[in-house]
Amino acid sequence: MELGLIGLGKMGGNMRERIRRAGHTVIGYDRNPDLADVHSLQELVDKLQAPRVVWLMVPAGAPTQQTVDQLAEVLSPGDVVVDGGNSRWTDDVTHAKELAAKGIGFVDAGVSGGVWGLENGYALMVGGEAEHVDRVKPVFDALKPAGEYGYVHAGKVGAGHFAKMVHNGIEYALMQAYAEGWELLEAAEVTTDVRAIFSSWKEGTVIRSWLLDLAVRAMDEDAHLEHLRGYAEDSGEGRWTVEAAIDHAVPLPAITASLFARFSSRQEDSPQMKMIAALRNQFGGHAITA
Amino acid sequence: MELGLIGLGKMGGNMRERIRRAGHTVIGYDRNPDLADVHSLQELVDKLQAPRVVWLMVPAGAPTQQTVDQLAEVLSPGDVVVDGGNSRWTDDVTHAKELAAKGIGFVDAGVSGGVWGLENGYALMVGGEAEHVDRVKPVFDALKPAGEYGYVHAGKVGAGHFAKMVHNGIEYALMQAYAEGWELLEAAEVTTDVRAIFSSWKEGTVIRSWLLDLAVRAMDEDAHLEHLRGYAEDSGEGRWTVEAAIDHAVPLPAITASLFARFSSRQEDSPQMKMIAALRNQFGGHAITA
Amino acid sequence: MELGLIGLGKMGGNMRERIRRAGHTVIGYDRNPDLADVHSLQELVDKLQAPRVVWLMVPAGAPTQQTVDQLAEVLSPGDVVVDGGNSRWTDDVTHAKELAAKGIGFVDAGVSGGVWGLENGYALMVGGEAEHVDRVKPVFDALKPAGEYGYVHAGKVGAGHFAKMVHNGIEYALMQAYAEGWELLEAAEVTTDVRAIFSSWKEGTVIRSWLLDLAVRAMDEDAHLEHLRGYAEDSGEGRWTVEAAIDHAVPLPAITASLFARFSSRQEDSPQMKMIAALRNQFGGHAITA
Amino acid sequence: MELGLIGLGKMGGNMRERIRRAGHTVIGYDRNPDLADVHSLQELVDKLQAPRVVWLMVPAGAPTQQTVDQLAEVLSPGDVVVDGGNSRWTDDVTHAKELAAKGIGFVDAGVSGGVWGLENGYALMVGGEAEHVDRVKPVFDALKPAGEYGYVHAGKVGAGHFAKMVHNGIEYALMQAYAEGWELLEAAEVTTDVRAIFSSWKEGTVIRSWLLDLAVRAMDEDAHLEHLRGYAEDSGEGRWTVEAAIDHAVPLPAITASLFARFSSRQEDSPQMKMIAALRNQFGGHAITA
Repeated sequence: MELGLIGLGKMGGNMRERIRRAGHTVIGYDRNPDLADVHSLQELVDKLQAPRVVWLMVPAGAPTQQTVDQLAEVLSPGDVVVDGGNSRWTDDVTHAKELAAKGIGFVDAGVSGGVWGLENGYALMVGGEAEHVDRVKPVFDALKPAGEYGYVHAGKVGAGHFAKMVHNGIEYALMQAYAEGWELLEAAEVTTDVRAIFSSWKEGTVIRSWLLDLAVRAMDEDAHLEHLRGYAEDSGEGRWTVEAAIDHAVPLPAITASLFARFSSRQEDSPQMKMIAALRNQFGGHAITA
Repeated sequence: MELGLIGLGKMGGNMRERIRRAGHTVIGYDRNPDLADVHSLQELVDKLQAPRVVWLMVPAGAPTQQTVDQLAEVLSPGDVVVDGGNSRWTDDVTHAKELAAKGIGFVDAGVSGGVWGLENGYALMVGGEAEHVDRVKPVFDALKPAGEYGYVHAGKVGAGHFAKMVHNGIEYALMQAYAEGWELLEAAEVTTDVRAIFSSWKEGTVIRSWLLDLAVRAMDEDAHLEHLRGYAEDSGEGRWTVEAAIDHAVPLPAITASLFARFSSRQEDSPQMKMIAALRNQFGGHAITA
Repeated sequence: MELGLIGLGKMGGNMRERIRRAGHTVIGYDRNPDLADVHSLQELVDKLQAPRVVWLMVPAGAPTQQTVDQLAEVLSPGDVVVDGGNSRWTDDVTHAKELAAKGIGFVDAGVSGGVWGLENGYALMVGGEAEHVDRVKPVFDALKPAGEYGYVHAGKVGAGHFAKMVHNGIEYALMQAYAEGWELLEAAEVTTDVRAIFSSWKEGTVIRSWLLDLAVRAMDEDAHLEHLRGYAEDSGEGRWTVEAAIDHAVPLPAITASLFARFSSRQEDSPQMKMIAALRNQFGGHAITA
Repeated sequence: MELGLIGLGKMGGNMRERIRRAGHTVIGYDRNPDLADVHSLQELVDKLQAPRVVWLMVPAGAPTQQTVDQLAEVLSPGDVVVDGGNSRWTDDVTHAKELAAKGIGFVDAGVSGGVWGLENGYALMVGGEAEHVDRVKPVFDALKPAGEYGYVHAGKVGAGHFAKMVHNGIEYALMQAYAEGWELLEAAEVTTDVRAIFSSWKEGTVIRSWLLDLAVRAMDEDAHLEHLRGYAEDSGEGRWTVEAAIDHAVPLPAITASLFARFSSRQEDSPQMKMIAALRNQFGGHAITA
């Protein structure tokens, strides 16, 4: 089939390649003309035969909103827009409504795969009405990993990004789990080869996983991770997961702890611990460290 | 080689079988005569040719201590005792010293594998001196999973159980991570097929793992886990992990949250939340629920 | 001075009384005619001399929004509206803008005091422009506790409810702290009179506080809180505190733990712990509790 | 009455002064001859009339153990030893047994008060048999704050230090609560005078407390605590509280979070966050910060 693809960065570029390898036609647009197949959204639309499918891989928030606004102008009734970016699921509902007013369908797609996606496939979590999802199905099939898994129609509009958001929330806590265990093993005197311990866990244990494999890879490159700083950004999905949990009164202690650990990792000095130091000094005369 | 194996319960019985399949001779002793090959520790020792290797699979704590005490009496210098149970790693140091006084070697082995071990192999984390560990190596090779991984000599005496303890601590938090994500997906209205979402994650995602596969298996049997109670025991290793972390001033927020979630799950009613209810009533006149 | 007061429930009724005791004129309106001094908003406005000050004590969300909308219609330029309810601070900004378009000022006031406020005074945290805040100052002075403290002009519009929100977030964690300590003392065998311990802490300790006094009061009425259920609602401010923290990338581990403890207290059975139970059963054959 | 006091440091010295002000005789011993009234334990014992009461204010652990060992040699049956230091409550049981073998009584006393104790009194939590506790009562009365509160006989041997340990665990979480709220207020743009907000809370609020007063004092000296580093030691009691909770399967999320926040505050760089950074880089090609 034919697909318009907007946004050809690291993710979008590799996805174009994987979809083409599956025999589909992809017409890509990007602000960067070196990456683009066409030079404007209008040209993209003109080159695609109606009813069109146009897939967005642009940054969440304002850039996605602007692109949806523009597409609402240039697309035709019966076309379908897929948002494959990292949009907050609540935005999907807004975008779907805006496009529906023009007779344009909307599908949200959470995409996982990172730098490994081109070769191994991208896991896809999709939300929207069945008739719209079905229209994009050949592209989903091209992108997803081989085999039975790696694709789900998770529910109505927003369900794709919601499922991807929860995926990322879980990911935060899984990473934190290995990181905590690793720090403890490194701190203990009795265990002398932490890399070998992690490596041994790759078979026969309850905790074997792809993330464990990656941890071993990282230690193979730098046994004690001495060349890294303990600093981690967060991409938004972790925050949204906690906020969604609060909305539903669902306790998420491990995921939230993982999010907060990232916040702390980015502070030069901890303001709240200044207050702790101040209070200890006030009541106990404990020495303070200036 | 020849091995004496003490404790032929669910784990020990399966391990005897797997070691025998590898061509070794196992003489098993258990209090339950229906399971045992011999009828006393003395008979076990008599039937093994010195220098002997005797493997314990008995409950941690007093039963293991008693067995070590008895073996210190009946074994000979040059023999090696392996504790494959769930002993706390600090006990290993005591046991090793007690046996060393009699010229008997000691190896601690953390064993992972559960009900899947007989077919897939048992992951082994081993602590002790190289000369003792080497003596047991053929049995370790028989027990471990096929392939490159699943076995590590993690350090000196205690390192095997320490590594297994941390493995279990990590396991607690991994399970908690999936459990939290699952509860949130079930609570949300937008995602309509949570089992399908989890199942889709088995390929192409960052969070694919054996535990995820098991979560899907559980949902295949009972889609919303309606036939289960939200109740979880803890086996000791999670507690010891947190205690070891406290000893080393290592923060373990996600693992500790997972341990506390299990504690809470076993309370009919939460005492601390009674105090919260009492305080809210005192200052705000908030209705209390009796 | 003269004040219009809308909402004469538990809080509003006591506040009317305290303001009157200070010598001011309060004209109260409530949907419930038994509580009200006037029978409509219009009548309230007519009875007050311009420029008017009208104080809202109605539930946050839709009821407050509707009242603000109505007041925007019936009030005159130069009047000032005070929202003393539990509104989210972000709503204040909306309300201020809406009223400013009509030349009406807006002040947000977080009010603490509960059932003790009538006698002891209400702590007030206020946001808004100085000229509007100054207009309401005599009422603030009437409501606040005697002495130097208990009132703050915390910043621009929204700052009052923001400060009150953080106050409540802190309150959650303070309560949780005492509740955790209390549960541990009750669980221990060595401490035989927990009420006496808490009571002794009222003087000379680092942890003496009004909440501690209330905890002792509660135990004086019911020594082991046996007549209470461990169940706690949350009023919104705790959730908003965590959300504000996430917006600012501030880690709030203790406050968030306190919020989640309340969520858990309201669950008949914990869904996430069902998943833990399911996983333990899958890999370890651990018995499950149905 | 007559009291022997061993350990005349910051705490012990002030306590000697307060007991003397109440009209009792205190004979103090310290390794530092400039502080001591006598020059050896033997001299201390000789100067006291039997049956004696000897109070220890020496560091917990080995120093306390050594002093108890020495006192077991030099004291007589019928004498009573009071440990007022920061001993772990489990040590009390050992010490009581050791002394009981010589006919010497033992009382453990948790002492709170810090630099404010001399003037305001020391809160006392006491464990031991009634006959021993009664012997020390006049000294307890001299040390405790004026009024009804500030002293409790909390239970049998160990109960005093256990209650003091829980007191400190609660203290950790109370401090953390204020510190989190403070950091959030400082981070928010809407609240412009955080010191004034905290100060206003001193009256009429649910969260008023002595720790709040101290927080305001600290801000009065350094409005934004800019001259402090966010670094906090922990004294042992917080760790023991969590360990005691684990022993009793009591969940302590807020107290434990507070302990872990201190651990983190002392790390130059977070090892566990290095692993998070490594994993993010492995799967997502996320830039790493070296």
